[in-house]
This record gives sequence, structure tokens and C-alpha cells, in this order.
Amino acid sequence: MFESAEIGQRVSKKHWKEESLRLRHALLDAQYRLLQDARSAVVILVNGVDGAGRGETVNLLNEWMDPRHIRTEAFGPMTALERQHPEMWRFWQVLPPKGRIGILFGSWYSDPIRAHVRKGQKRERFLHRLERIRQFERMLVAEGVVLVKLWFHLSKKAAKDRMKLLESDPKTAWRVTPQQRENIQHYDRFVRVSEEALRKTSIGEAPWLVINGSDPAYRSLKAGQYLLDALNHALQRPDPVPGVPETLPATHAVWGMGERGLLAAQDYGRRLKRKVYEDELERLQGCLALLSRDPRMLKHSLVLVFEGMDAAGKGSTIRRITQALDARFYRVVPVAAPNENERAQPYLWRFWRYIPAHGKAVIFDRSWYGRVLVERVEGLCSSQDWMRAYGEINEYEEQLAESGAVIVKFWLAITPEEQLRRFKDREATPHKNYKITEEDWRNREKWPLYERAVEQMVDRTSTRIAPWHIVASDDKLWSRIEVLRLLCERLEQGLDKTPVKN
Amino acid sequence: MFESAEIGQRVSKKHWKEESLRLRHALLDAQYRLLQDARSAVVILVNGVDGAGRGETVNLLNEWMDPRHIRTEAFGPMTALERQHPEMWRFWQVLPPKGRIGILFGSWYSDPIRAHVRKGQKRERFLHRLERIRQFERMLVAEGVVLVKLWFHLSKKAAKDRMKLLESDPKTAWRVTPQQRENIQHYDRFVRVSEEALRKTSIGEAPWLVINGSDPAYRSLKAGQYLLDALNHALQRPDPVPGVPETLPATHAVWGMGERGLLAAQDYGRRLKRKVYEDELERLQGCLALLSRDPRMLKHSLVLVFEGMDAAGKGSTIRRITQALDARFYRVVPVAAPNENERAQPYLWRFWRYIPAHGKAVIFDRSWYGRVLVERVEGLCSSQDWMRAYGEINEYEEQLAESGAVIVKFWLAITPEEQLRRFKDREATPHKNYKITEEDWRNREKWPLYERAVEQMVDRTSTRIAPWHIVASDDKLWSRIEVLRLLCERLEQGLDKTPVKN
Repeated sequence: MFESAEIGQRVSKKHWKEESLRLRHALLDAQYRLLQDARSAVVILVNGVDGAGRGETVNLLNEWMDPRHIRTEAFGPMTALERQHPEMWRFWQVLPPKGRIGILFGSWYSDPIRAHVRKGQKRERFLHRLERIRQFERMLVAEGVVLVKLWFHLSKKAAKDRMKLLESDPKTAWRVTPQQRENIQHYDRFVRVSEEALRKTSIGEAPWLVINGSDPAYRSLKAGQYLLDALNHALQRPDPVPGVPETLPATHAVWGMGERGLLAAQDYGRRLKRKVYEDELERLQGCLALLSRDPRMLKHSLVLVFEGMDAAGKGSTIRRITQALDARFYRVVPVAAPNENERAQPYLWRFWRYIPAHGKAVIFDRSWYGRVLVERVEGLCSSQDWMRAYGEINEYEEQLAESGAVIVKFWLAITPEEQLRRFKDREATPHKNYKITEEDWRNREKWPLYERAVEQMVDRTSTRIAPWHIVASDDKLWSRIEVLRLLCERLEQGLDKTPVKN
Repeated sequence: MFESAEIGQRVSKKHWKEESLRLRHALLDAQYRLLQDARSAVVILVNGVDGAGRGETVNLLNEWMDPRHIRTEAFGPMTALERQHPEMWRFWQVLPPKGRIGILFGSWYSDPIRAHVRKGQKRERFLHRLERIRQFERMLVAEGVVLVKLWFHLSKKAAKDRMKLLESDPKTAWRVTPQQRENIQHYDRFVRVSEEALRKTSIGEAPWLVINGSDPAYRSLKAGQYLLDALNHALQRPDPVPGVPETLPATHAVWGMGERGLLAAQDYGRRLKRKVYEDELERLQGCLALLSRDPRMLKHSLVLVFEGMDAAGKGSTIRRITQALDARFYRVVPVAAPNENERAQPYLWRFWRYIPAHGKAVIFDRSWYGRVLVERVEGLCSSQDWMRAYGEINEYEEQLAESGAVIVKFWLAITPEEQLRRFKDREATPHKNYKITEEDWRNREKWPLYERAVEQMVDRTSTRIAPWHIVASDDKLWSRIEVLRLLCERLEQGLDKTPVKN
């Protein structure tokens, strides 16, 4: 892949003068139109060989454009906090919102390549990380992010010559770091591994551009022109297909709708006596309290997801859990419609933000599953969007699990009759009044649509690493005990597993 | 993923009678519209647990629809011939053309799952094969194939009960094979592995449908309805975006066009004296002859690709190679515009057909690279199509290499001046007249566009396993010797590698 970048392209001074001025104006203009347009974020990845001009290019782009709308981030080895999160977590933190440009110097490629070249990380692990990157980038592009992937290359000879030249002059010798001296020893292997990484991640939607870094004028014009093309492409692309609210099919038009499904098949008749409930509650809360303080918890985190129809009892169940926990241990995240900042990002972004470090827990009251539930049913995203979400969510949870998270997902299932009883109770009871709105009644009319969405969600996202627990919740007492019991069981199992190291 | 398929769905006799009739009519109607429409092929994958009704469903679909337009294929363990080809080869052979339906009973999923469950194949290899499948299916969908992935499930208890029932009656006992008796022992592991396979391959464009197989009426209606939805979806989808011929940018509009690139950087001045040429030719042809008869060749195949501008000397170079070979060893495949059958298939299909078995060679005079050369430049496919082709081609060549193919790719590079000289010579020489057409002159005008396409092709598809060799060919003698030399060198290296076993 590096053939074209080793033929010594140069650009004359005159050409540089004319072209750099033209490019600079065009880039600035495009940057402002991007900001105005506010439909796409642009992420520039800057990677390559030492001394091939990566840093200089980052500086130049900031100089050519308005740096107030550019966020530049450099990534070195992971910090202790970053190591307690999934690998991609630190990149999610710095994704630019729509309209903005992010420059990532040493991106999600640096560590997989370095680990394979230098730390002897196995080839299988390397390939797995590349596959993860590919899925991540595909998702970003589908979510409207424009990816500009720049690889600055130097031939072995050019890299060595450059180093010698710098070292020969006391005024520049400091620029050659011990790290770089070591890197050049591994040049061949680095290039071989990088070639494979580039090849396996040059997807159609986000190909790599390899740039010969030996001539500063050439590489700057090349990178700038490529970025300009990407910006123009982003500005010209058509709007995404809008979603359409789902509707109930006419009777018999779609067979299968209304068939006895997974939710209807639950046993809603199970009840618990108050006395039994209280004994069990005490026992299980004690068990949970102990587990949360278990030393093994320091290498794990806990991610709890609660979903269910309106009035299924999510809030009150969560309270029975938090009663057992130290307030410093957990955080409850109620999820409603995304706010403006959140809408300017890929849909998973707001959930990545709350991923707990080791030794911590997060309880989601509704979650990323909104994508395949409310957003699907109400047509808040297109059918392509929610269709691809199942895979994206599985991949997301796999990353969490790999980094040591124990994921426990509950669907609190109630019957339509029980929901009606609770709605009426809420209307009749002054202190529960605030809990019932017009929207709840509207959602209720779409019960069969939600039922279908829930069943497909469970079919496609109930996995060994993060299974769905469907808990019949017409009786709140039985439901709470069942949730606590499952939670203790799953946490106990999860703490025995060893997280994957990068 | 199997929760919904274990709740014992049933369908009443009356419902079955009404619905199956309705479904049958609708399917037949949709099948004929698909044939008329002729824009999409439909591929139905039938997989699942023993005894869950896979075979019965295949028979039923053939009964419900017109079997003349359905091709049903069952796949067992690989034959000796299939083992000499890449794993996916046998599936490529049976892909239905546009307008038709293919039913694959035991598809590309069976062997990876079986190998992992029963033959102790490593998890890394299993994951790699799943990733390959994902890429393959993504490509099929992008090429207009509608994938219907059906998984027929039975709970462990249901599977055991069914087996006992069959065994208890002498009239049905024969239906339980020793293989099935063995399989039930591995039920838990089979289901665990299958769940992972389904989860990792439920991509948005082609999700799995898991069907409870215990009630024949239920599973038939469910599968039929799903197929009907898929057919209707295929019929309603909009036409793909058409391609647009590339045009030369106005001067300076795109910087980089016309810069001194990889092709211009070659040394076209190298010449060989006739006497040296003849000696070298004899020596290298002898070397090639020996290599082609090497015993190691029985575990390898040879795939040669020749590309180059018109009149670059592809034909005459190929003749110098075949002179050294036994006629039973090789096949030369000249590639022109696809014919009607080929246009009804994904673009790589016609190249998969010629993949040689072990101990054989195929020489492509032009190749799958037409996708990113002529099809790109002339707008015969959309820019999304050729953009994704780089990755698809790399993946294709990786599969070839894994199965033991040695891939050697040559770009015969000539200067525009030399081409002009050869064109004029062809016009002036009566026996070369047939070689020059109006189209050659038209292509020549697009030289800079082809040059850019070639350079991007080399950048993106020159890989360690299948590098491009750019050979300056203004002097035919020098070029032929260089090609032979490189070919011997690469073949010698390639024969030392061990193909990957599935």
C-alpha cells in the first residue's frame, strides 16, 4: 500500500505559494459551511511513520482553518482510568458534534499496531481489534460522521536519512527522541503490520489516504486537498431517509402480528406474600451489599439496564436495589429523549459517557434500547437505522463485557390489564398524578407495536454475555425479589471472569 | 437469541388451512413478479437444530412456489475437490441469477459451527470464519441479493422428545440417524456456539429469523410470511444509483491530478539486447517449467493477473509464460465486458468460476480489477460500488491465498508515447489491424483518468499476500524477462507456505 508514497514527490516553491493560498481559502470557506450546515461531524485521523510530518500537518490545519471550531486531541498510552474502560471509551469522549472538526493525533490505530509490533500481542487479538475498528467506523459513517484517514509515510531510507540529518546538528539533535531511535529498529515490522491494518480497514465508506511525508509542501497540499474533497462531499450529500411511525397492520395483512409471543407466554399469575417478600428482600439486599463490596469488584464494573412498558415498576425496583448499595458505588441514569448536545452525536454517544470505571455501577432507567423500541415505533429514525442498531448494540455490550463490565438487562413485563389498573390508580392518587401524562395513554394504544419491537429486541440482543431477563411484574413483590435474585446470581458469576487485557 | 423460539407456539388447524392457502398464492405471485422484475436474486439459508423441520420447509417452499425457478442445494462435508478451493467457492457456484430463488440447505454456516463444536477448531478460527461470512453477506446485499436467513430451533427437551417418539415406533425409527443420536449429546454446546454465530452475523441488511420448529403449521407460516415480506421488500426497493463517467477536471480545479505519480516515476529507459533476452528467456522458462512440476505445487494453485493499458503487451507476455507450461496445467482467461449471465450475478462471480484447483494455474488477461479501472472511469458502476470494491477484492484474494493459491499481479506500464507508436504500427501492419479499434483511441484520451485509477488501485490492493508488480514495458524484451523473473521468484516463495485448513 505504500508504493506510491515512496517515489519522492516534490512540489516547487512557486506551486506551493499559489496552491497553499487557494487551498487555505477553500478550506476555511468549507469549514464555515460545515458549521452552518450542521449535519455532519468531521473526524481526521492522523497516523503514520515517525518524522513523516504528522505533527506539522496538525499544526498547519489548525493554522489554515479557524481553530475555535476544531478540537485536536493527541493519544498516547492509556492512562490508569482509561484502562478501566473499554478501549474505545476515550475516543468516544472526544468525538466532535455535528458541524465541527476533530483531529485525532494517534487515533484508535496507534495502540493495536504498537501492541502487535512491540509488545508481542498475538495476531488473533490484533485482528480482533481491527475488526472492532471496522465496525466502529462503519457505525460512525452511518451516523453521519465524515472520516478522513491520513497515513503519513516515509521509506526506510528517508526515515534514516532524516534522523541522521537532525542528529548531525546540535541545534536539531534534541528532536530525535530515544523512542524514535528505538522505533527505527523496528521499521520493517512496523510497516508490515501497518500495511495489514490499513488494508483491513480501508472500507469503501472510509478509505485510507497514504501520503509521502518527505516533502513538507507536497504532503501539506495533498492532505489539505483530500480534506477539502471530504468536506465538499459532506456538504453535498443528500439528507438521510426520514423515519416513518409504525402502524398497526390491517387484520390478517401480516400474519404473526398478535400471535402468542414471548411476552404473552410469561406467567403473570405468580404472587408473593408480604411476609415472604420482606424476608427475601432483606436476605437478597444483604447478599447484593456484600457482592458490591467484594474485592473482585475492583476489576469489574456493573451495568444494569431496566426497560419495560410505562408503569411496569422500573423506578420502584431500582430503589430496592440502591437501598443495598453505598451511594459512592452507583449512579442511576434516567434516560429520556436526547437533548441538543446528544442529538449532535451518534446515538450511542450519550450512553458511552456513563460507562462506569472498575469498582463502580451504573443503573440505566431506560437505555440505548430506545433505538429499537420508541425510536423504531415512533419513526424517530429510519428502518435502516434501527435494523443496524441490533448489531451495533451487541458490539457495544461485547466491548463493555471484555473490559470487565457485568451487564444485567431486565425487561419488566406487565399485562395491558395491569397497566390500565396502574394508570387509573395514578390518575386517582394525587401524589402519583405527575407520573401519568397524555403520552402514556398514546403509547398504550401502540401496545402491539411495542410488543413486536420488544420481542425482536430480545431475539436479537439476548446474548450469553448480556442476556435479557424477562420478569413478569404484574405482582410488584414477586417481580422485585426475582430481579434481586437474578442480579445477585449474575453478579456472582460475572465476578469470576477475567477481563481481556489490551 | 432462542428465547422466543422455546415458548411452544402453535397454530390451529383452521388457521393453518386459511392462512397457508393465502400465503401460497401470495408467494407464487411474488415469485413471478421477482422473475419479471429481474433486479434481485433471493437466497434462502436454511439452518438449525436437527428435527426442527428444515427439510420439510424446503420441500414445502418448493411445493408452494414454482420449483422451476428455484434452485435447491444441500451442502454436506466438503468434497476433495472443494477442499482444494477456498471455502466459499462451492457457494459461489450455486448463487441464483437475478430474478431467481436459491435455497441453500446447510449453508456457509454449517461447517464453521460444526468444526468449532465437534472438531475442536479454535475459537479464533471460528471468529475469523464468521467475519468472512459477514463480509461476504454484506457484499451480496450490496450487489442486490436478498438474503433470507432462517434458523429452525427446538429446545433440548423438544429435541429429545421428538427423537424418543420417532424411535418408539418401528415405522419411524429409521428417521433417527446415528449422526442425530450423536448430535443430541452435544446439544448444549451446539446451541451456545450457534447463538454466537447468529449474533455476530445478524447484520442490519440481513438479520436472522429464529423459528420455533416444534409445530409444523406454525413454522411453515412463519417462514413463508418472512419470505413473502422479503420478496415484497425486494420488489419495492428503488433502483440503485447509476454510475457517472469520470471527467477530466479543469486545470488546477483538483490539485494532484497530473502530478508525477507512481506510473510516471517508473524507469522506462531500460532495454535488453536480443541475445541477452534469448538466453535469459530460455533460463527462466526452464525454471518456471520445473516449478510448475514441483511436487509442492500439488498443495498450491497459481493465479496470475495481467493488467495494463491497451497495447502494453499483455498477450505476448502471457505467451512467453505458457510456452514453458504443460497445456494441462494452465488455462488463460481473457476478460472482456460481462455477458448476460454474468451481469445477473455479483461482479466477482465470473472470476470465482475460474479459480483453479490445487496443482493448476489460471492466467487472467484483464481481471476483477476492471471494477476499479474501466467500470470506474466509464461510470459502469456507481462510485459507492467501486469504492467498496477495493476491500472486497482484498478479501477475495485473501481467501484465495489462504486456500493455497499463489497470486502474482502485473501491471505492464507503458508511456503514452510508446502506446501511440504501437497504435500506429497496428494500423500500418495488416496482420495487426484487428487489434486496434475506435475504442482504443477513445480510451487513450482518458489516459490521465486511467492513470489516477491505476495508482489508487495499487495503493489500495497491493498487499503482502498479493502485491502488484509494476513493470515498465516500453521495451518488450526487458519487460518479458522481468515478468518471468518475478514470477519464478514469487512462485518459489509461495510454494513454501502451508495453506490454511478448515
